[in-house]
Amino acid sequence: SLHRIKASGLKLQLCTNETQATRQSFVRKLRALGFEVSVAQVTAPAPAACRLLRERGLRPHLLVHHDLVPEFADIDKTNPNCVVLGDAAENFTYANLNEAFRLLIGMEKPVLLSLGKGRYYKETDGLKLDVGAYMKALEYACDIQAEVVGKPSKRFFESALAELGVPAEQAIMIGDDIVNDVGGAQQCGMRALQVRTGKYR
Amino acid sequence: SLHRIKASGLKLQLCTNETQATRQSFVRKLRALGFEVSVAQVTAPAPAACRLLRERGLRPHLLVHHDLVPEFADIDKTNPNCVVLGDAAENFTYANLNEAFRLLIGMEKPVLLSLGKGRYYKETDGLKLDVGAYMKALEYACDIQAEVVGKPSKRFFESALAELGVPAEQAIMIGDDIVNDVGGAQQCGMRALQVRTGKYR
Repeated sequence: SLHRIKASGLKLQLCTNETQATRQSFVRKLRALGFEVSVAQVTAPAPAACRLLRERGLRPHLLVHHDLVPEFADIDKTNPNCVVLGDAAENFTYANLNEAFRLLIGMEKPVLLSLGKGRYYKETDGLKLDVGAYMKALEYACDIQAEVVGKPSKRFFESALAELGVPAEQAIMIGDDIVNDVGGAQQCGMRALQVRTGKYR
Repeated sequence: SLHRIKASGLKLQLCTNETQATRQSFVRKLRALGFEVSVAQVTAPAPAACRLLRERGLRPHLLVHHDLVPEFADIDKTNPNCVVLGDAAENFTYANLNEAFRLLIGMEKPVLLSLGKGRYYKETDGLKLDVGAYMKALEYACDIQAEVVGKPSKRFFESALAELGVPAEQAIMIGDDIVNDVGGAQQCGMRALQVRTGKYR
């Protein structure tokens, strides 16, 4: 179907909440599967977070997956004044969580950017807690509200629309997640279509 | 002051949210400091949880501190139908959290008993996330509400009063925590007195 979209002349932007790897490696995987997409055609939480960090002069402490770190290569991370939380997987250690917590609680006005708010996801070896669970832990401990950067946040879809150069009412979001994909896009004024693949039940 | 309470003939029950060690070792510490108290004079979350588990025929999976495990020695832990969460400290690993989560999400009606809901506490090497933060993570991931067994839960104070054989209106709670000690006791119909020691600021 990506081929047919291409042939039709429609513009395409992929919106992913992937936060365990860079867009580069995400695109590599898709290309290996035969999908001809470029890095610029991918809207993902990490680059969205980078834009936000720059806009607001924020210097992050990263609690993210090791493979995602390159997305933040050009960001000043000295003397952190915020925490960026992703699906850190094996990096979600007791020590790392305490470290992120101490930095937050030590800030005059703690800023926690979360690259998503997923509850859990499935891997071959079973279900895993997703970034949303750890976000809730830090929110509670610090008595703060995180800012969610990935889907379903409005900002995320606006950034994808800006990339396309298309107004919301001329775009359609296609996804398998009723909240993150369909709900998020609709709140942004887009139409949305739910496909019964992936995590659809 | 414990000596004067003893001399006065007043009954004394210690209410602690300590979940990193057994009552035995808690009492040993106090005795080493010169306080003559017995294990029966200590109301703590773990034994309160054990009563609850027995009453409701619950078989726990434990995610607690290693030193607390002996409190659950007499409890059937085969084929778990609930999760008991304490301040597990170093046991709060990514793998252990995923394991507790998978058990909960796999239950027809997930039951999460939390031995407390503290946000954080201070140790010599810095602030640490307390059990409440991990409780929130599991609550969010499973879309459930944990049952809190320690202070400030009403059940906890009622159990201390039962141990004393004294009605609420004849008891006074003395503590340093405005929510866990003072608030919890007042909700139970007791009077309460806040001391400006410990965590008081």
